[in-house]
Amino acid sequence: MTTTHNTDPLEVTERTRLRRSHERGYFDRATINDILDATPLCHVGYQLDSQPQVTPTLHWREGDRIYWHGSSASRALRASLDTPVCLTVTQLDGFVLARSAFHHSVNFRSVMIYGTPEATTDPAAKMEKFKNLIEHLYPGRWDSLRPALDKEVKATAVLSMPITEASAKVRTGMPNDDAPDYDLPIWAGVIPVTQGLGAPQPDPRNLDGVAQPDGLDDVLGLRA
Amino acid sequence: MTTTHNTDPLEVTERTRLRRSHERGYFDRATINDILDATPLCHVGYQLDSQPQVTPTLHWREGDRIYWHGSSASRALRASLDTPVCLTVTQLDGFVLARSAFHHSVNFRSVMIYGTPEATTDPAAKMEKFKNLIEHLYPGRWDSLRPALDKEVKATAVLSMPITEASAKVRTGMPNDDAPDYDLPIWAGVIPVTQGLGAPQPDPRNLDGVAQPDGLDDVLGLRA
Repeated sequence: MTTTHNTDPLEVTERTRLRRSHERGYFDRATINDILDATPLCHVGYQLDSQPQVTPTLHWREGDRIYWHGSSASRALRASLDTPVCLTVTQLDGFVLARSAFHHSVNFRSVMIYGTPEATTDPAAKMEKFKNLIEHLYPGRWDSLRPALDKEVKATAVLSMPITEASAKVRTGMPNDDAPDYDLPIWAGVIPVTQGLGAPQPDPRNLDGVAQPDGLDDVLGLRA
Repeated sequence: MTTTHNTDPLEVTERTRLRRSHERGYFDRATINDILDATPLCHVGYQLDSQPQVTPTLHWREGDRIYWHGSSASRALRASLDTPVCLTVTQLDGFVLARSAFHHSVNFRSVMIYGTPEATTDPAAKMEKFKNLIEHLYPGRWDSLRPALDKEVKATAVLSMPITEASAKVRTGMPNDDAPDYDLPIWAGVIPVTQGLGAPQPDPRNLDGVAQPDGLDDVLGLRA
């Protein structure tokens, strides 16, 4: 075990061990889960015909597993099944302006998970996963929707892998300039990067009198 | 050539051809460059010891080349040199809520670039690249900084590849529901996801009287 900042740490492996910037590494589930849960977008990397591929997609977490989905016809999903992948989630939190070019940086939170995805194939189990994704994003929405059809369940693949070999990397705060540079009259600081929600835009084809459900101004903690 | 929406299209190759959702594919430089220039963060995918890796980093564009940088000691940068990589940039623009679970989606803009990175090794050329990165993010800042040191140039690696094999994928607008579902009293629409800037936070160690430079409330078109 190397750097840990919290209880319930994951085992640090040859793949997740940080070679540099050790002070930015976290291996505890609380830190990893917080980043996974707050960020809708991940990038899945896999090898296809000797070519690395990086596909953006939505992810969601259930306990100690990470899930994503897509079309059953998707070459990306089929190619990333039963083969090693790296799933990375990154949130950019700020631009860090230092007194030298070298110490400019960004504040961010990221998680990397290594694993071999498995498919959920049982139709009832898949249906449960779709419900979990919808409810993760929009609590209470599933029961309001037109029920899913068998052909839709067939047409959608669900992949997942355990969160066992994973690490988080986090940078926060002000620049770390060289000591003598603090005497220079150069403005340094942080410009926060924020992610939020705009006002919900109703589909012009909504039926008259259909009200906007509660909660759509707060998706995954993002706010209008 | 398959789908193109604009002038100056890139050649569509076996790797960039879209297998599905053809109407979302763009191969023109204007669309690709706009997405690359507006988004600071990319994810670089490469293979290391039979394991896919996806590393988040900043990128910048110079004409028809894409650049990124990092520590010369970085295993990620060394492993992604002279070997095939996939560099993906994704901006999440909105949550799309449909009348069925199946047609829920997200609005987004993404670019995938395939290529084999080369390093810029000449010290003067590297210095020019660092200047271009700083000026890309903060126009006018380079000349205000403590000049870069030889050891800093040595400690930093610059990678790039031509933007020749690349594609953009864009989704905008309202859900595409099944025709009969438009008769259902279910709220559908789009919740925009926005990225912006917070108010710049000066380093408490800034010297008295050092003023905040102009332009820091507009980085890459992101605004406070």
